[in-house]
Amino acid sequence: MFNNILIIGCGLIGSSILKGSFDKKISKKIYVHEKSKKNISFIKKTNKKIKLLSKLDRNVSDMDLIIICTHMSQYSSIIKKLQKFITSKNIITDTGSTKRNIINIINKNNKIKDIFIPSHPIAGSEVSGPKYGNKDLFKNKWCIILNNGNKKKIKKIEIFWKKLGSKIIFMNAIEHDKIFSITSHLPHLIAYNLVKTATDFQRKNKKKIIKYSAGGLRDFSRTAASNEIMWRDIFFSNKDNIINSINIFIENLNNFKNLIKKENNKNILKILKDTKKVRRQIIELKQDISKPNFGRDIF
Amino acid sequence: MFNNILIIGCGLIGSSILKGSFDKKISKKIYVHEKSKKNISFIKKTNKKIKLLSKLDRNVSDMDLIIICTHMSQYSSIIKKLQKFITSKNIITDTGSTKRNIINIINKNNKIKDIFIPSHPIAGSEVSGPKYGNKDLFKNKWCIILNNGNKKKIKKIEIFWKKLGSKIIFMNAIEHDKIFSITSHLPHLIAYNLVKTATDFQRKNKKKIIKYSAGGLRDFSRTAASNEIMWRDIFFSNKDNIINSINIFIENLNNFKNLIKKENNKNILKILKDTKKVRRQIIELKQDISKPNFGRDIF
Repeated sequence: MFNNILIIGCGLIGSSILKGSFDKKISKKIYVHEKSKKNISFIKKTNKKIKLLSKLDRNVSDMDLIIICTHMSQYSSIIKKLQKFITSKNIITDTGSTKRNIINIINKNNKIKDIFIPSHPIAGSEVSGPKYGNKDLFKNKWCIILNNGNKKKIKKIEIFWKKLGSKIIFMNAIEHDKIFSITSHLPHLIAYNLVKTATDFQRKNKKKIIKYSAGGLRDFSRTAASNEIMWRDIFFSNKDNIINSINIFIENLNNFKNLIKKENNKNILKILKDTKKVRRQIIELKQDISKPNFGRDIF
Repeated sequence: MFNNILIIGCGLIGSSILKGSFDKKISKKIYVHEKSKKNISFIKKTNKKIKLLSKLDRNVSDMDLIIICTHMSQYSSIIKKLQKFITSKNIITDTGSTKRNIINIINKNNKIKDIFIPSHPIAGSEVSGPKYGNKDLFKNKWCIILNNGNKKKIKKIEIFWKKLGSKIIFMNAIEHDKIFSITSHLPHLIAYNLVKTATDFQRKNKKKIIKYSAGGLRDFSRTAASNEIMWRDIFFSNKDNIINSINIFIENLNNFKNLIKKENNKNILKILKDTKKVRRQIIELKQDISKPNFGRDIF
């Protein structure tokens, strides 16, 4: 499909693209640009055929596809370096979790604007780093591609993600950031704050309560163990939507609190039953499996 | 250990006690009292040796141990029936998720008070019914036993749960209800309300967003699929602690929202890093395993 691709940032996502690209023979040569020495030595050990690009220099102009997989707070400085060498023949994409911020960066730069097709694979985990890279990470997962830009280049990005196993959806950046503020950013933010609430309680009451976390807290703590730089970047770059989501959620919580106060049997049961239906939808939509969780196979 | 035990209510918890008791030869005979015809026919098929007790009649006086495993809203009517026939030789325990309400019921009744030793195994799942019953459900899980009542009877309840594989902690009802309002009740309540927030958004914006739930919402939806009667009973019976927990959580959310608004890098990163440490504690305390979640083995 390509002669040369360049992966910038080789953590969980970058290394999974690397492995998937080798596996699906997406490119004759695969280059990696990565700052962390630890990550480099790990990638070199496990992928003998990769080529390291220590600097983003004139070599980038030979890259048919450049995939930015770093934290979003590094995008500006990366694009600054890239713009010196890229031409209209290159294609750039990324894997960032918010998209209006990327569009803002791109739109400031006419050279970049025509060749940058932002994307967002809905895949990942609470763990980070190339150690966990998996060639099948994107298999059967949604990948959002922004639907503005050069049509031929969009088509190539579509084929690229499809080869890695993804199902494609086209959206604009505004729609994307609104949807994921609810389905992804709010859940993570809540998980972080729930764990914080538990540790605050522990400190204040001098009681060890974390050991009783199997009753529910445990599952939230997994989400709250996700990479802090990645999530800080998301929270800051999708600020307005996230603040709006928090407000709606707090309104729901206050309503629920009042229903409990009044022991409003009918309305509480309606909410609890309705959410159960959503679970069935999520399983039907293949976003999860129906196998029950009794404590993640501890016994 | 016993000649006769009686399990009242044979859903997920009751049927797991049934299977574990057979497996560990805890009693010569095991009786079951269960209202649901569907559950009865399932239990009969899979456990040939059980004896059904269609009514809570004079036979209950022969039961060395009676374990109430129904929804908590049924306790009052069950105890009303039991008190006619029980004597000081019987022992009663239960598996309810809140404990002050049980103590209140018991304390109104001198005959019951002396023989009822409440307990709470921290085990379960989002699924219900005897179909999911598992002899190892309680293995390596905490079981809370209330530390007031007849010492000999408390000892027997302790041995009973240990035989089923549980680790024992003694507490009083006030302490119990406070701790679990944070580690279990608040997480469930939040999961229900997060899913509700997502469906409200979907309806209001006429956008199908549930299909993008792999980014975080998915894991909460599992918790929000738990049995609605069980959770209504918990929310109502631990009302004051839960309302308090909601208020603390909302305060944390509002603080977090302001940190995002101001892009307070330092304080946000501190919160995100601290919660990561809690995750490590939870794994060290064997409340979860460290295996990463990439979407519950969908691929």
